[in-house]
Amino acid sequence: MEVITTKHEIRRLVWDARCGGRRVGVVPTMGALHEGHLSLVQASAAACDMTIVTIFVNPTQFGPHEDFAKYPRDLAADVAQLVPHKVDALFAPPLDEIYRPGHSTFVDPPAVAEPLEGAFRPTHFRGVATIVLKLFQLIPADVAFFGQKDYQQSLVIRHMVEQLDLSIAIQVCPTIREPDGLALSSRNVYLNTAERQQALALYRALRKCVEQYRQGCSRVAELQGNMHSLLLEAGIAGIDYAVVVDRNSLQPIDSANDDSVALIAARVGKTRLIDNLLFS
Amino acid sequence: MEVITTKHEIRRLVWDARCGGRRVGVVPTMGALHEGHLSLVQASAAACDMTIVTIFVNPTQFGPHEDFAKYPRDLAADVAQLVPHKVDALFAPPLDEIYRPGHSTFVDPPAVAEPLEGAFRPTHFRGVATIVLKLFQLIPADVAFFGQKDYQQSLVIRHMVEQLDLSIAIQVCPTIREPDGLALSSRNVYLNTAERQQALALYRALRKCVEQYRQGCSRVAELQGNMHSLLLEAGIAGIDYAVVVDRNSLQPIDSANDDSVALIAARVGKTRLIDNLLFS
Repeated sequence: MEVITTKHEIRRLVWDARCGGRRVGVVPTMGALHEGHLSLVQASAAACDMTIVTIFVNPTQFGPHEDFAKYPRDLAADVAQLVPHKVDALFAPPLDEIYRPGHSTFVDPPAVAEPLEGAFRPTHFRGVATIVLKLFQLIPADVAFFGQKDYQQSLVIRHMVEQLDLSIAIQVCPTIREPDGLALSSRNVYLNTAERQQALALYRALRKCVEQYRQGCSRVAELQGNMHSLLLEAGIAGIDYAVVVDRNSLQPIDSANDDSVALIAARVGKTRLIDNLLFS
Repeated sequence: MEVITTKHEIRRLVWDARCGGRRVGVVPTMGALHEGHLSLVQASAAACDMTIVTIFVNPTQFGPHEDFAKYPRDLAADVAQLVPHKVDALFAPPLDEIYRPGHSTFVDPPAVAEPLEGAFRPTHFRGVATIVLKLFQLIPADVAFFGQKDYQQSLVIRHMVEQLDLSIAIQVCPTIREPDGLALSSRNVYLNTAERQQALALYRALRKCVEQYRQGCSRVAELQGNMHSLLLEAGIAGIDYAVVVDRNSLQPIDSANDDSVALIAARVGKTRLIDNLLFS
């Protein structure tokens, strides 16, 4: 696996591969790799002739009081995790290769960026859309792989790609979970033992919600109320949202259906976690 | 010359040419073609193996009270003008091929979009940056050609390309003028005979400004004052700006130098005209 740090080299590699008729997949990450990321790498390796992984902790998607500075970084460990996989190149640029002084051009993201995470992290998706667009320019791949764990992010990226005519397909892969159900996240390392236990309530609440729907309850007010109760019972007071909304628009609905999705964002101790579950 | 109206076809054409080792140039226009546009076509034909012209009157770069509805459109006349030139394809998509209902993703343009035109047409460069980025995705050319007549636009596009890592070179070609000095513009057709005569004052003021600088006057306040006086003497009261600024940042300066540019925007009758002149 080649490690590339310059824009010029990565673009050349991918362009030549594409023109040579090879199908190229890209897996954009912020490092701190776990099995969730590796499942994306496997999906790309299975579907493509060349797989590029990117590692870049993108400052513009962190709010001023968020964890940019302390976000886990360990390139050597990440490389070690990637080596057993069919990865052709790792693109790990330094900060100033991506953002130069005076950077002021951003992607104003699609409407689907506004609710939920957009309400709690007002500039987050602007940063995400901007870095993803930049990476797609540097790495003109056939297909990019993202995890369903960041459900709203995957919608933001899909809509951006459609609306800005980017020539890349977006494939969203299932959330990978610990055996006890906790969705894998690079931020799980922040959790102490008690918080790690509490954090299970997110998935438990989501599963209960979908079960209740399948048993005949489609009243969103009731489904949401039950998720809140379950989280509070587990001692999680910092609930940013626990909602059932339309899976395409993320707009509120009164009555759930097979096109609904349940999403939770909650702070467990000082760590903010998100998770989601589709109704079908 | 092939006329293409779908995103799928134009992308295929350009991609295949690029992978075949051909150098591709693109000339984005809003139609109503004149010798200014044709000079860009000639520049592309001279430097590239394949030249694509685009014609699309982009609604998102017009303000709510601007001339989107009455902007001159005559595809047959445009095609006739292009036929004698070495143009491989004309991309002339219908509106709904480019903007679908619910379009909400935009490029928030670089800081250089803020002064001058940005102050008088607050959403203009957002629309320009968005359509140009979209066209560059659909037409992954080696180089794009723009006219210096829209000086600030060329800076906005250059900075956007740099900051979003778009893989295209931007070439800015000299302003083409009528024999009497009026910069060619699709909007000149709006001028009646008296206004056409008045409009000459823009270039006259710009030339006088640069001449005075070359004769030793570098006081920007004086240079700008003289431009205003000359415009007012010609009966042009609707001066949006007549300034001398830094040619790279468009920021105000006290003392002119070889890196300065003079820019004017003024309304002649109901027609808003712009023009500019570099100090060296």
